[in-house]
Amino acid sequence: MHRSRLSTLLIDAPADQAGQSVAFWTAALGTTSQCPPGEPQFHSLAEAVPGLVTAVQSVEDAPRYHVDIETDDVAAEVARLTALGAAEVGNWQGCHTLRVPGGHLLCVIPVHSDPAEFAAAARVWE
Amino acid sequence: MHRSRLSTLLIDAPADQAGQSVAFWTAALGTTSQCPPGEPQFHSLAEAVPGLVTAVQSVEDAPRYHVDIETDDVAAEVARLTALGAAEVGNWQGCHTLRVPGGHLLCVIPVHSDPAEFAAAARVWE
Repeated sequence: MHRSRLSTLLIDAPADQAGQSVAFWTAALGTTSQCPPGEPQFHSLAEAVPGLVTAVQSVEDAPRYHVDIETDDVAAEVARLTALGAAEVGNWQGCHTLRVPGGHLLCVIPVHSDPAEFAAAARVWE
Repeated sequence: MHRSRLSTLLIDAPADQAGQSVAFWTAALGTTSQCPPGEPQFHSLAEAVPGLVTAVQSVEDAPRYHVDIETDDVAAEVARLTALGAAEVGNWQGCHTLRVPGGHLLCVIPVHSDPAEFAAAARVWE
């Protein structure tokens, strides 16, 4: 048995525009931003959407959004999603990147939000 | 005075892969899908993320995600976001599409979620 939920919306911005992106989204959503310790590429947007971690990520790529699924068993969740047709295309710092049917990118990550919030919102997979 | 909030996550899938995309996301998130009346291009994913409308949209384009901001005054919200650096790039069926700083697409739409939920979650702009 393991659990997972769609936990995170990433606004991936090209590195040279990431500052402008953070400034726009904080003002647009009426929130503040902060960098998690040791992760200068992320700017979390506090409570932009209740229950959904929302952050601007500086990337060396074209602008895009992607989503993360957090789980208490990364290997089991990757196996479950792969059986549904996803293909793993990368694995970096514990984040498994999948290309899913339809063509979208999705990352599977260990639980990083509040444990009580995760427990309340996650689906259980037998 | 008007109000707005980030209300919607759209999973835009190429038309020929939209069926696979709906099948994947309903299974991946442990939910069901339904087409809103008169909008066959949308498949809403029920309660995929509490408080966030989540849907697969069939598009004649490459796969991408985008987000919607819903508001009780579309013109005022478009003006507010334009003043923050966004540029309007399209207007279709009441949906104003903006390209925002950092390069992402964002649509501004009239309130479409439950009025009480909108009132509880929206920011107020004076």
